[in-house]
Amino acid sequence: MVRTASASAAAGPTLAVVAREAGVSVPTASKVVNGREDVAPETRRRVTEALDRLGYVRRPRSDAARAPRLVDLVVHALDDSWTGAVLRGVEEAAHDAGLEVVVSAAPDRCGAARPGRGRLDRLVARGSAGVLFGLTEPSASQYAWLEQQRVPFVMIDPVREPPPGVVSVGASNRQGGVAATEHLLGLGHERIAVLAGDTRTVCGAARVAGYRSALASAGIRHRPEYVRHAGFDERAARRHTLELLDLPEPPTAVFVCSDRMALGAYRALAERGLSVPAGMSVVGFDDLPEAGWASPTLTTVRQPLAEMAATALHSLLRLIDGHRPDSTRTELPTRLVERASTAGPPGVRASATGRGVSPSRAPAGPPR
Amino acid sequence: MVRTASASAAAGPTLAVVAREAGVSVPTASKVVNGREDVAPETRRRVTEALDRLGYVRRPRSDAARAPRLVDLVVHALDDSWTGAVLRGVEEAAHDAGLEVVVSAAPDRCGAARPGRGRLDRLVARGSAGVLFGLTEPSASQYAWLEQQRVPFVMIDPVREPPPGVVSVGASNRQGGVAATEHLLGLGHERIAVLAGDTRTVCGAARVAGYRSALASAGIRHRPEYVRHAGFDERAARRHTLELLDLPEPPTAVFVCSDRMALGAYRALAERGLSVPAGMSVVGFDDLPEAGWASPTLTTVRQPLAEMAATALHSLLRLIDGHRPDSTRTELPTRLVERASTAGPPGVRASATGRGVSPSRAPAGPPR
Repeated sequence: MVRTASASAAAGPTLAVVAREAGVSVPTASKVVNGREDVAPETRRRVTEALDRLGYVRRPRSDAARAPRLVDLVVHALDDSWTGAVLRGVEEAAHDAGLEVVVSAAPDRCGAARPGRGRLDRLVARGSAGVLFGLTEPSASQYAWLEQQRVPFVMIDPVREPPPGVVSVGASNRQGGVAATEHLLGLGHERIAVLAGDTRTVCGAARVAGYRSALASAGIRHRPEYVRHAGFDERAARRHTLELLDLPEPPTAVFVCSDRMALGAYRALAERGLSVPAGMSVVGFDDLPEAGWASPTLTTVRQPLAEMAATALHSLLRLIDGHRPDSTRTELPTRLVERASTAGPPGVRASATGRGVSPSRAPAGPPR
Repeated sequence: MVRTASASAAAGPTLAVVAREAGVSVPTASKVVNGREDVAPETRRRVTEALDRLGYVRRPRSDAARAPRLVDLVVHALDDSWTGAVLRGVEEAAHDAGLEVVVSAAPDRCGAARPGRGRLDRLVARGSAGVLFGLTEPSASQYAWLEQQRVPFVMIDPVREPPPGVVSVGASNRQGGVAATEHLLGLGHERIAVLAGDTRTVCGAARVAGYRSALASAGIRHRPEYVRHAGFDERAARRHTLELLDLPEPPTAVFVCSDRMALGAYRALAERGLSVPAGMSVVGFDDLPEAGWASPTLTTVRQPLAEMAATALHSLLRLIDGHRPDSTRTELPTRLVERASTAGPPGVRASATGRGVSPSRAPAGPPR
């Protein structure tokens, strides 16, 4: 089977000839050729037969000006919820801008999600209009190479601090960490642990920084044994939760720096026969679909992934069009989504702590 | 910013000139240009400076023979687990075959996931090598148009029976329905309900057919009130489960025709204070990640989505290369994955039914 685009240089009959052969108007023949719905079946049949009989071939499509441009989305993994939300945001915004999206994976290499040489080679060879990297970490030489090849790129949620001048889009992770911790403080918790993600990452570090800041503002003393590094790994989160429960003075609440890790914490609590939130309050981070599927549903910090992705695409379009970026780092706001996994601590003495439970933060209160 | 591909017709200095300017060998200069890692930082700096100073531009990439071909994946939704698994399978197989994947959404139109005109227009205009449709239902005129434009296509899990001659890849849905129901029968259940998906769909109908067949083989009488049509909708599944619980003789087990609907059933059971599996055994279908996240983890029928996707890509490659398809419908095997959501019915009288609980199907037994 030969593709039209490459086979059609030799001109066949024009659409006018086809229309005459089929006994229809040129616009009607055009509708059939373009797959429009508003053509009577009998008319469609006549035109299709005429097209076949005459060997009609569409105009060659090598006309570069008319071909849609392609942008690339390179992500750490294709089969997870984070990518699903980002892909939706990128594809919708790209479609609106008349662009199409080539998707490829940057599998884990040497502990970093780094685009493979083959995939980067191909996108450069194809003349990609630009690249969005999602939770992916190009190497120094890959950054340099893209710049040298004049392929513009934007990072979505960069894993490490990108080189100076590189444009990135993320969420207000620090503020999210503050909101999660203040929510638990507001419910009357004082013994609040954190399951940190990888704190060498931009987002992982900022979420824990928010936690520390909120505790400090509330005058709660820092307990090093309450800060656990679970590296965004669900199984590690389960293990650390078990260790937290084994402390002489276990926490009554935990801020878990990803929804996925929160599911690991749920599992540990279930293993010890503790229910959420009576046995321990849990706040997640991300608001991926799994937060709503969990039982009980997970109170979490929402980062607007589809909007971040659309923002990144728009930033990329500016670079493609030769504009300088307005800013190199854009952060979209996060917000707490209250569900069923948080409540006051057992025997809450909120009023005695001097902070009290404000009505808007009570367990039954409306979402903020 | 101008793309190299379109800007480089005017020849600049050759790589040999760059290498001489930088005082390195041509292979070393080539390594830097190609973004290879095995170059000393100082050497890379010298070559990069020489490239910039001389205004070196890579060869134009319009050389069509070298540019990778693009295939399209058009799916019903971008942000769900089904698509994640399929995208992973397609992208890996495409990468191995030297192809790249353009992804686009076929949003719900008039109750069917039908590709929008804009997206189909673009992929044809670009000269797509071929299209994979995932859980998507082109209209009759879209099918006709693609054929006329000589764009080959393959369906992954077609929603409705595709027109004759159209190549599709799916899973053995009927056998999966049999396996799910036989698992429950083997545990001693006799009152087994089914939450059907949309039975106008190929997969939805086959799963229920498997359920009916297994019950008939076991000599269990058919109860129409146990067959519920929840249209692959999680909320409808919750509602139907509540109605099942309100029957004078409620079922002790339910085969739910998708993992997503099984989560709706879980919710209904929790609302009635019933635990899984003590209050009711639940078997799902799909084995998406949510099956493992659910609490208790969901016993389900696994369909090998990534493998189905890779198979579809290989079928598409055969069509692109001008071969006739080996077969128009390929079904990959499903298998039951036993987790924690199934057990014997309350007061099981398995031996009295004459079927008994075989060791390999006992709740604590090894997975099959």
